[in-house]
Amino acid sequence: MSDVLARHRAFYDAVETGDLELMESLWAQSPATSCVHPGSEPLTGTDAVLRSWAVVMANVEYIQFFLTDVSFSVHAGDVAVVTCTENILSGEGVETSDSFTGGKAVCTSVLVRDGAEAPWRFWSRHASPVLEPVEETD
Amino acid sequence: MSDVLARHRAFYDAVETGDLELMESLWAQSPATSCVHPGSEPLTGTDAVLRSWAVVMANVEYIQFFLTDVSFSVHAGDVAVVTCTENILSGEGVETSDSFTGGKAVCTSVLVRDGAEAPWRFWSRHASPVLEPVEETD
Repeated sequence: MSDVLARHRAFYDAVETGDLELMESLWAQSPATSCVHPGSEPLTGTDAVLRSWAVVMANVEYIQFFLTDVSFSVHAGDVAVVTCTENILSGEGVETSDSFTGGKAVCTSVLVRDGAEAPWRFWSRHASPVLEPVEETD
Repeated sequence: MSDVLARHRAFYDAVETGDLELMESLWAQSPATSCVHPGSEPLTGTDAVLRSWAVVMANVEYIQFFLTDVSFSVHAGDVAVVTCTENILSGEGVETSDSFTGGKAVCTSVLVRDGAEAPWRFWSRHASPVLEPVEETD
């Protein structure tokens, strides 16, 4: 089942390298697929999902994802649920080329395939910000 | 497939009525189930997930969920993905009995079943806050 995780990682490679063709190849084609970007409402349908990623890729000059706590389960043979923490390093919002901003999100993805010989494809992706607790001071 | 949505709705009924027994009956029993509360890191394993809901139920006196944009898909016969918007009315954080606070979250849930005769059970739940865009003023 390592091919599930390889496809899951390929998603982040696509964002990092701005490879929209790779991104397209990773999604199931359906009006019922869904994607939730951190803090946003769900996008429904592969066309809308891919458009949103095209916009992200066009607007982010540098981004890198370090994934931790990756775990997955497979159901009914052809459906996988993958959860992970995305530790994000990005050049967005900083003004000099040698500075970075960071962020953390958690993500649950559902990948499906049409039988054991078919590739895994994303059906649903839900990412959300991890809000740091406000420290109380005396 | 309306039984998927009935089980999905029963989850919110359990929270609203503080019915931990109902909540327990709705989850698959596994160390690999997962639950993301809005703004939080994932909880893994049914024991941890149920403990978190027991704490929520113990601390929230009044809460009501109005679900909108509910949609679902079924994969490989026995895996369902449900997305919805949770419009939340709660008595938390207010001081008089006739005032309420509201909130909005979006949620992606994965339910599974062991064959067509078995009940649907939650395997994964990922809820996140919808962050309102900051309005720019001149």
